[in-house]
Amino acid sequence: ITSKLPEVGTTIFTTMSKMALDYKAINLGQGFPDFNTDEKLQALVSKAMADGFNQYPAMAGVPILREVIHQKVKNLYGRSYDIDTEITVTSGATQAIMAAVLASVGAGDEVLVLEPCYDCYLPAIRLAGAKAITVPMVSPTSKNPHFSIDWNRVQASITSHTRLLIINSPHNPTGAVLTESDLDALEQVVNDTQIMILSDEVYEHIIFDGVSHLSLSSRPTLAERAFVISSFGKTTHTTGWKIGYCCAPKNMTTELRKVHQFMVFTVPSVLQYGLAAYTADSSTYLALPAFYQRKRDHLATGLAQTRFKVLPSPGTFFMLADYSAISDSTESDFAIWLTQNHGVTVIPVSAFYESPTAPSSNHHIVRFCFAKKDTTLDQAIERLTKI
Amino acid sequence: ITSKLPEVGTTIFTTMSKMALDYKAINLGQGFPDFNTDEKLQALVSKAMADGFNQYPAMAGVPILREVIHQKVKNLYGRSYDIDTEITVTSGATQAIMAAVLASVGAGDEVLVLEPCYDCYLPAIRLAGAKAITVPMVSPTSKNPHFSIDWNRVQASITSHTRLLIINSPHNPTGAVLTESDLDALEQVVNDTQIMILSDEVYEHIIFDGVSHLSLSSRPTLAERAFVISSFGKTTHTTGWKIGYCCAPKNMTTELRKVHQFMVFTVPSVLQYGLAAYTADSSTYLALPAFYQRKRDHLATGLAQTRFKVLPSPGTFFMLADYSAISDSTESDFAIWLTQNHGVTVIPVSAFYESPTAPSSNHHIVRFCFAKKDTTLDQAIERLTKI
Ligand SMILES: CSCCC(=O)C(=O)O
Ligand SMILES: CSCCC(=O)C(=O)O
Repeated sequence: ITSKLPEVGTTIFTTMSKMALDYKAINLGQGFPDFNTDEKLQALVSKAMADGFNQYPAMAGVPILREVIHQKVKNLYGRSYDIDTEITVTSGATQAIMAAVLASVGAGDEVLVLEPCYDCYLPAIRLAGAKAITVPMVSPTSKNPHFSIDWNRVQASITSHTRLLIINSPHNPTGAVLTESDLDALEQVVNDTQIMILSDEVYEHIIFDGVSHLSLSSRPTLAERAFVISSFGKTTHTTGWKIGYCCAPKNMTTELRKVHQFMVFTVPSVLQYGLAAYTADSSTYLALPAFYQRKRDHLATGLAQTRFKVLPSPGTFFMLADYSAISDSTESDFAIWLTQNHGVTVIPVSAFYESPTAPSSNHHIVRFCFAKKDTTLDQAIERLTKI
Repeated sequence: ITSKLPEVGTTIFTTMSKMALDYKAINLGQGFPDFNTDEKLQALVSKAMADGFNQYPAMAGVPILREVIHQKVKNLYGRSYDIDTEITVTSGATQAIMAAVLASVGAGDEVLVLEPCYDCYLPAIRLAGAKAITVPMVSPTSKNPHFSIDWNRVQASITSHTRLLIINSPHNPTGAVLTESDLDALEQVVNDTQIMILSDEVYEHIIFDGVSHLSLSSRPTLAERAFVISSFGKTTHTTGWKIGYCCAPKNMTTELRKVHQFMVFTVPSVLQYGLAAYTADSSTYLALPAFYQRKRDHLATGLAQTRFKVLPSPGTFFMLADYSAISDSTESDFAIWLTQNHGVTVIPVSAFYESPTAPSSNHHIVRFCFAKKDTTLDQAIERLTKI
């Protein structure tokens, strides 16, 4: 067998979670809650099983779940996606991303990706036979502690082969969120082109300081060319259930579903029924900003007592921190050292770059996940204070 | 957006299930039970949720499920797949098939497929950029009422570009099962070549008349080059849960997992835990041959009273029947007519061919699914008797 993805090894999340276990470290690496999901949601899944919804659901997802997604997107972002032809339930956002990429690009096509980026984008592009063109985000400075997008640089990277541009907001791993002026710039870039957009919005409901998420579905000029992808994993504390979805105009959804139906055919019926009944109540996700902002502030306050320098986290359940005052190792070496010597596991941001070991991918920054019980955060802070 | 799969429309299963609903027909088309799964299994999933197994499991599947798969394959077929490096839990067999194909073939490669075949094989090959070479099975005659494989024809279709050969036993849609002499012939064909094999064995536990399933994993010379794929959907009456798996030698599993981890990352934790605890008891699947053989015989006895001519079904929960005595329409037209005029839905076997409308794909045969309550089968028989 000849490798189709020779550059791929074990994901950083698996590697660090395993190291956390081996060293009995507190795992603030891989992004998942260490508390359980709501018993009400569990009961709804149990009911779906008892009611006999255990056989193949519709290929595009159970209609009542698509109805709930439709309503939410309409209420929050003002776009009315057609339930039959524009909404597809997927095996997490990951499968939606892979299906959208496989459906939309092929040999000879270029896909623009902003770095740092989530680790599945580049392999999906390669498997589709297309070429990834990475554009670095502007790194934080002491004057501007945010990662941000240089739209002139994005514009300059567009060629006649560019077919797809991938964006992600709130952004993993940096926590950055797109602003109205980002969307204006994006509009400029794609205007009068055939470029499609893939918008990864899995953290749409985890956004702080009173700011509202700017979904691409809220801008007609962008939504008409966008795969807007989200997930229930982060929203309902069920990252292990792998239920996500993609909203896209009919012609794009048609192609996405052709891939989807042969990639997984459909996703677990009982989880879909449970999530539909549960998230029909919007308070289940509208409560998330307050819930996670408290955890963010809890961790930030704790880290302020350490030699880490916290960067602002406007969204996601991740927080970046600069460790320059502690070490000048690479991010990867620092993360390993921290696990092995201080019992706290984090993720090196460099792992989100195409070339993790390149100096330009290393900013002495690591990512902490604060989707954890307060006691877990307190224990980690206690350990970090000793460094 | 330019279609990557221009020839793909709605699957025959979705089309016929929708037509069944629209015409209030008895649905013996799409392959799924109309009875519920065991309450014990449901309780085990509920327990996994309550126990908090709702976050990302290991990428390759939860260890105890891989352990159960390992034990079963060892006990039944004598091969000891390594739990860490050779067994991967997937989003149903469909995702295992797509991942194996994407991982193993690309542009310039040829993949041999026997027709009729399950509908996801050809699109997976196309998405991988490879070329499908279809070899028709020998159609049933009055002397030999079975679909069978002409291995000389398979041999003659091998070229220096052939990289993968897909087989399926027990075979959907025909019910055919491979014999020792088929495996001998297959061994001859691949011997001294670099050809890999993908063996779709999702009906491994639904095989009749005292015959044992011949898994490719039981033959070292074949297993060393094979992706052996199966699923829990058919085995535990949970087609809607989408939990499958792939056993393959380490080097092939490594490549499969590279694709898997970016295609779905992992599959629902709670369903995996439930299935592991449930299928650890081998009686859950060892009871299936008797269970389904009774249903097979029930339907066959009923159809013997009609103008359909039943073909033998050595495995799967499907049965073929010849309708020549009723009509000389194409299979697709006949299936539509049967739903609309007689309220029974079946699947045209021609839909399992690359060219469904070609005369060579039409044998006046349709497929009945007998994974149904006896009362459902009785109602269908009553309607069919009137034709
Ligand atoms: C699929 S494991 C990675 C989880 C995650 O989204 C993250 O930690 O960034
Ligand atoms: C994925 S729907 C098809 C179910 C099935 O395996 C069949 O009916 O052949």
